[in-house]
Amino acid sequence: MDSKSGTETPQESGVESFFNSAPPLKDRDQISQKLEDFITKISISSESGKPIRVVCVTSGGTTVPLEQRCVRYIDNFSSGNRGAASTEYFVKAGYAVIFVHRRGSCQPYCRYLPQDSFLDFFDIAENSTIKVCEPHGTVVKGAIRDYRKAVEEGFLLKLPFTTIFEYLQILQMVATSMRCLKSHGMFYLAAAVSDFYVPWENMAKHKIQSAEGPLDMRLNQVPKMLLVLRKDWAPAAFCISFKLETDPDILLQKADMAMRKYGMHVVVANELATYKREVSVVTSGEKTRVCSHGQDHDLEEELIDILVARHTEHIKKSSRIDVNEAL
Amino acid sequence: MDSKSGTETPQESGVESFFNSAPPLKDRDQISQKLEDFITKISISSESGKPIRVVCVTSGGTTVPLEQRCVRYIDNFSSGNRGAASTEYFVKAGYAVIFVHRRGSCQPYCRYLPQDSFLDFFDIAENSTIKVCEPHGTVVKGAIRDYRKAVEEGFLLKLPFTTIFEYLQILQMVATSMRCLKSHGMFYLAAAVSDFYVPWENMAKHKIQSAEGPLDMRLNQVPKMLLVLRKDWAPAAFCISFKLETDPDILLQKADMAMRKYGMHVVVANELATYKREVSVVTSGEKTRVCSHGQDHDLEEELIDILVARHTEHIKKSSRIDVNEAL
Repeated sequence: MDSKSGTETPQESGVESFFNSAPPLKDRDQISQKLEDFITKISISSESGKPIRVVCVTSGGTTVPLEQRCVRYIDNFSSGNRGAASTEYFVKAGYAVIFVHRRGSCQPYCRYLPQDSFLDFFDIAENSTIKVCEPHGTVVKGAIRDYRKAVEEGFLLKLPFTTIFEYLQILQMVATSMRCLKSHGMFYLAAAVSDFYVPWENMAKHKIQSAEGPLDMRLNQVPKMLLVLRKDWAPAAFCISFKLETDPDILLQKADMAMRKYGMHVVVANELATYKREVSVVTSGEKTRVCSHGQDHDLEEELIDILVARHTEHIKKSSRIDVNEAL
Repeated sequence: MDSKSGTETPQESGVESFFNSAPPLKDRDQISQKLEDFITKISISSESGKPIRVVCVTSGGTTVPLEQRCVRYIDNFSSGNRGAASTEYFVKAGYAVIFVHRRGSCQPYCRYLPQDSFLDFFDIAENSTIKVCEPHGTVVKGAIRDYRKAVEEGFLLKLPFTTIFEYLQILQMVATSMRCLKSHGMFYLAAAVSDFYVPWENMAKHKIQSAEGPLDMRLNQVPKMLLVLRKDWAPAAFCISFKLETDPDILLQKADMAMRKYGMHVVVANELATYKREVSVVTSGEKTRVCSHGQDHDLEEELIDILVARHTEHIKKSSRIDVNEAL
């Protein structure tokens, strides 16, 4: 992959026009500062010992606004559970994680906490302090400890997004800031990213009125950023993308295609009907099934183990290439 | 409003075909049982004193699936904050509330609790119990107490929905079960209901593929159920609907139209840019502005006050009509 080829493909011009027409990120400066601080801290820690690996985990679905003053939007089904669980296992494996997540989606260390019936979780003790109803106490205590440790030691940075416009701009910022990590960087792209969008300038300014019969909409394709990520933003990083389909007949074929077309190192393939219990790790020439062994067992534990091993190989291979190039 | 007029309008046949084509509610029997228990408990309490009023509060946005095995859907922007806050004030005013809400949206008594940074809220005390970080402790204690009281005394029933299909089927069930309450029933329809949907039988079975250029979609209008609610489901109840617009120029005109067209008693009009700070209560011939007096003040407090007073008038008027009819 060479970023200096000079010839621009139609795909790339789609990327440019997407970014040019996107509404600018509101908190760009703060995000930029947070990223700089995070990467600097990692780099300093790395100098005094074994290099720390950094993974950007994306999680949850992106929205596509249908109106500029947005009342309606298209959304992608995603609880964010996989990204949250994976983040915990990456931290456990010694990775620093940049968790790029949909606002309100599942958060690391919060997976066992209730969302809807929050207040059923707590009670007021006789001495009028708040207590967590058993048997949840132990789980919550562990979660608070692990979460605090990860944040305080600089192993977890959380960046939220809502729209496809925010997501892709943040991904670009994260990727370019991770470029300096070379092969020690990893992208674990579990977010459910919209395939279609309405360009900002074509969008209705106000809420679409419902009095005028059926609504016809034309949605454009979102340019495939995976290619640009691999080619331009962070070419030395280890890249894992996800493929979700509802039709098992086309799943592996699509996973394989994604790998070749976008230069992914690994594609994790999952089916909507079984995604909680089973995924397939697809690499060139190999397919490994990873299954959950029951309700209390995260398949992400084994999945992250496999990916960490593959990342190690990638780092070794890259360092051999670097040595050869230096000779 | 007469349900026995015999002539069916095009609007009504739209209603019928909507329900016929909707995927059936999975937990219909449980919902039905919960409603029966709730209304029975209220009726028994009412017999031994002042009749208890019941309000159905709908809250949050409905989704419109774009695929039968749904990966993508259209959603409506709504945090559910207004419905959750209003529920608290209705309970305070002595109403029993059926809170029909979008899964994962804001819940009554949970408005001051964090969603994304949940774990920042807690700490582990020296004796290794979990404590709520100050200054949140007092708020959380009050919330737990009020919530428990409302549920245990039978003043709060929560029913969740996600899709437009679930929402309208549940609303129909709630409305017909509240019919027996006559003018003591109220509908406070704050949910952001989709105006457009894809009929189940027209829907793509599998995830729509993105390889084939732009996506053209045709969405049908969701039949206006307000009319059917007023006319057939619960004709004696007091009905309040909401109108959200982004364009202030058309807002009041649309609110007025909704009132006349669907026979609403009150329409609460709000603008997207200012909906947290200001609403207008529109009745025939009158418009009252309700504003928030600052960040810590809920405009719902005054709003519910006004609506409770209007509901009292409605009950008095209805009982005069009943007496006259009996003579």
